Amino acid sequence: MGGFELGDNQYGKAETRLVRVDRDGDTHAITDLNVTTTLAGDLAATHLTGDNSGVLPTDTQKNTVYAFARDGVGEIEDFALRLVRHFVTTTAEIKQARVRIEQYTWDRIAATGHSFARGAGTRTTTATCDGESAWVVSGVADLVVLNTTGSEFHGFPRDRYTTLPETHDRILATAVTANWRHASTGRDWAQAFAGARDRLLTAFADTHSRSLQQTLHAMGERVLEGDDDLVEVRLALPNKHHFLVDLAPFGLDNPGEVFHAADRPYGLIEGTVRRSDAPDAGLAWW
Amino acid sequence: MGGFELGDNQYGKAETRLVRVDRDGDTHAITDLNVTTTLAGDLAATHLTGDNSGVLPTDTQKNTVYAFARDGVGEIEDFALRLVRHFVTTTAEIKQARVRIEQYTWDRIAATGHSFARGAGTRTTTATCDGESAWVVSGVADLVVLNTTGSEFHGFPRDRYTTLPETHDRILATAVTANWRHASTGRDWAQAFAGARDRLLTAFADTHSRSLQQTLHAMGERVLEGDDDLVEVRLALPNKHHFLVDLAPFGLDNPGEVFHAADRPYGLIEGTVRRSDAPDAGLAWW
Amino acid sequence: MGGFELGDNQYGKAETRLVRVDRDGDTHAITDLNVTTTLAGDLAATHLTGDNSGVLPTDTQKNTVYAFARDGVGEIEDFALRLVRHFVTTTAEIKQARVRIEQYTWDRIAATGHSFARGAGTRTTTATCDGESAWVVSGVADLVVLNTTGSEFHGFPRDRYTTLPETHDRILATAVTANWRHASTGRDWAQAFAGARDRLLTAFADTHSRSLQQTLHAMGERVLEGDDDLVEVRLALPNKHHFLVDLAPFGLDNPGEVFHAADRPYGLIEGTVRRSDAPDAGLAWW
Amino acid sequence: MGGFELGDNQYGKAETRLVRVDRDGDTHAITDLNVTTTLAGDLAATHLTGDNSGVLPTDTQKNTVYAFARDGVGEIEDFALRLVRHFVTTTAEIKQARVRIEQYTWDRIAATGHSFARGAGTRTTTATCDGESAWVVSGVADLVVLNTTGSEFHGFPRDRYTTLPETHDRILATAVTANWRHASTGRDWAQAFAGARDRLLTAFADTHSRSLQQTLHAMGERVLEGDDDLVEVRLALPNKHHFLVDLAPFGLDNPGEVFHAADRPYGLIEGTVRRSDAPDAGLAWW
Repeated sequence: MGGFELGDNQYGKAETRLVRVDRDGDTHAITDLNVTTTLAGDLAATHLTGDNSGVLPTDTQKNTVYAFARDGVGEIEDFALRLVRHFVTTTAEIKQARVRIEQYTWDRIAATGHSFARGAGTRTTTATCDGESAWVVSGVADLVVLNTTGSEFHGFPRDRYTTLPETHDRILATAVTANWRHASTGRDWAQAFAGARDRLLTAFADTHSRSLQQTLHAMGERVLEGDDDLVEVRLALPNKHHFLVDLAPFGLDNPGEVFHAADRPYGLIEGTVRRSDAPDAGLAWW
Repeated sequence: MGGFELGDNQYGKAETRLVRVDRDGDTHAITDLNVTTTLAGDLAATHLTGDNSGVLPTDTQKNTVYAFARDGVGEIEDFALRLVRHFVTTTAEIKQARVRIEQYTWDRIAATGHSFARGAGTRTTTATCDGESAWVVSGVADLVVLNTTGSEFHGFPRDRYTTLPETHDRILATAVTANWRHASTGRDWAQAFAGARDRLLTAFADTHSRSLQQTLHAMGERVLEGDDDLVEVRLALPNKHHFLVDLAPFGLDNPGEVFHAADRPYGLIEGTVRRSDAPDAGLAWW
Repeated sequence: MGGFELGDNQYGKAETRLVRVDRDGDTHAITDLNVTTTLAGDLAATHLTGDNSGVLPTDTQKNTVYAFARDGVGEIEDFALRLVRHFVTTTAEIKQARVRIEQYTWDRIAATGHSFARGAGTRTTTATCDGESAWVVSGVADLVVLNTTGSEFHGFPRDRYTTLPETHDRILATAVTANWRHASTGRDWAQAFAGARDRLLTAFADTHSRSLQQTLHAMGERVLEGDDDLVEVRLALPNKHHFLVDLAPFGLDNPGEVFHAADRPYGLIEGTVRRSDAPDAGLAWW
Repeated sequence: MGGFELGDNQYGKAETRLVRVDRDGDTHAITDLNVTTTLAGDLAATHLTGDNSGVLPTDTQKNTVYAFARDGVGEIEDFALRLVRHFVTTTAEIKQARVRIEQYTWDRIAATGHSFARGAGTRTTTATCDGESAWVVSGVADLVVLNTTGSEFHGFPRDRYTTLPETHDRILATAVTANWRHASTGRDWAQAFAGARDRLLTAFADTHSRSLQQTLHAMGERVLEGDDDLVEVRLALPNKHHFLVDLAPFGLDNPGEVFHAADRPYGLIEGTVRRSDAPDAGLAWW
């Protein structure tokens, strides 16, 4: 075995689907989560010799998620923090824990206090802990947005392989994945989330865009500007291309009205905006 | 070739992704569709000899969808009707046409008149035409709903393979696919849709359920009751099981609070409710 | 409630994932299935009054699938037949049963007798029973095939919306879904499947195609020709378009070498070939 | 804008679907790829001011992929290297390029020299370049494997939340994603791939496993052992749980024969094995 070494490694239980019901008389609330737990530490033994004495089973991790939900879930950031702080105490070998949660949106159906319809978009969080410090990142996923105007793309370099025409008015559409890092671990998470999501949407809408990169940066800045506790935001924005259909063969013009929404390929723009004085990220982006 | 015959056949262009923008000053509207066209008729020649003289290419069908959108889309039922009535006139061999449309929901972002966020749920329609008559079916898809109470399941037969306990209070969740048939082909489609969708949701919510079949029937009846022009409704309701997690091994009770949302397997309940005097369905359900 | 009636209805358990291991010393075999059971009959009571006395729970259906597997699965057609014949005897109200099975392919890894790698393609069957008669349909799904030549498409009608050029040499690619109906219910299913799949592939490959419809018909005929017990075959063939990329803007020709594989839209060709003297289909295609 | 800074950023064209046909008389070959290009460098201008003078459009990146394919694709590692070396020369601002390729497997249909059926599994590569050096990583994805025996899991810690029984014989199944880093950039890539994939499968099969971590490590070591140019391998192995079904309620035993294949949650085991003297990874894992 000489000459080889074990590098980075981690393990956990992915996608535990937890639904919690809270009942206040006839008015119920639901919390619908997809929880992924990940642990790391001194786990060479299981890799090299099959000694599992430090390996908290992924099945136990799942059980822990359900058991902790018995006391209530609350905001997903708090629930994730409770879990990571627990997991780093489970065995001597486990040194780091990460809990990622996706929360699905449900809207009330007015007819009763116990009926819901699934809404669009997903709220996310990742909490991490090394046994001493903890970090919290919050975010959104599957947030699909579109501007019918206010987007240009020109002034780009042209080489032998360039055929793209310059445009001064196009549809700009993307499915936002954004994650923002908090400086602290105790906050009004619901309020912070609502504010960040709102600023993200507003910045997407009201930024006159010369590139999706520019829109990305504007969205990131806006998220940070409105909340002093946010120190960094990372965005991934697929450019969901909408191509103007050429109707000339049919004797028709097409003044920006009829578009083909393409699947693949798509542009993919990723970027980060952070405060110049942001504290060290630690395990936040693990 | 003796001894074989060509049976039912059809062809078309599936999933043409059409986005139309309507501009009224600074206030824009978008219509986001997935259109599938299907044609049938006397098409033995292409199957047997490769004579394509009656085969309107699927590429032409796609072009037609885009070209027709130049004049506006309006309600999807009207757009589908325009298309099917056109397609049955294209070649002598084409005798029947069907156009299925999925319309995706977009909500306005308040900051501008040209910004949108994708909402949940899908509105659907299918128009069919045989050259003389036309039929319209409207519906919803991907409408995920959940009741946290008001659902029982007991009194079922028990045999050697039964382990399911009776329950007097469970979570009932499903992803509704529903399609309702109109008697006429000229209506206020938007109003009819909004009403049917609202009644569907309300019936799901306020029906005390002894089985998902009972809920299905109540939803179907409610859709028909509120609109004299609707004559038949077909529903497919997957039973998205939510299992109460057994927390006893951890010394915890679980009074209807912590659930595991399962993926597979799932129950699947399908049924039809129609008026006793419904007109013949013709090609409506083709 | 006068004026409404319950139409066609059915229910069952979808996608029970069953894996069975057979051990012959150190040589093991696996059978990997996705089983969907569907029942129908006199089920008005549960829809109208919530009386579930005739409703064999879908949970029991799932249990039955697993319990029956204890005695061995064998060929999927036989397993499906065992199940449907059982289900129609469970309650007086259940008059019809259908079992659909998808079987996933696994290839052996040579190093041991107990190691496998998942292969491509899916074998399928549907057995149906009305309490007296039974029917068996077998088939394939997810069988993706491609010819780099031997495919033409021309001679089609041109109208105002036609832009497609005629082609005398194109890539033809599809994902085959095919289902063939057997006249009898007791056969060497494995041999019948292997033969039908092989003829399907060979017909796809060696048919010089003037349309995908022609290829479809040739595939259907070939399946029937080689097996007297097969009486009907239904095929659905998406036309997975491969577009020649225009390299002229880069000063390059493209003699049939570089293609863009498109996602959507796609043509969809569906057709049936049957023996002129095929017996009545009964519930075979339910 | 004081107080904010642009952090890591990159952009590119994701999932360009390229199919290339090579014709040698009547014997054709196909290369079926999904290509994702990513660029990074001094791109603050586009983010901050909308100056796109350094932004090679993602559309041009796509065109380049197709144009380069005109000269032949060859092994995906070579094609990716050609592309990254080109992209870093396109504008002064672009300092780094990455090209990821997924290659889909096709098997010949014997009947002709131009017919193919899609096989299982995906071969992958990632080439990166910083303008001076280049790195190549090769791998597999979607390689689903299963052992029916030879897998144990016991000796793990038990806490309040542990319910998992110890097992000395279970099914072990996973979908392998593995990536191995080459020391050099000029090799017989096809041979290297075939060898690494074969060793990976063999190690999965013939390792008696006390944990999936142990199997992972054995797979990684085996990949490295057989090829001196390979210096590091990273694996991600979802534990696709197969649960023995409890048939006791039906009066049946279940001696390791009937299993339920679960979807979610699943364990996820990730790890790295590298040579102790591996050269610096540079951008290899970007």
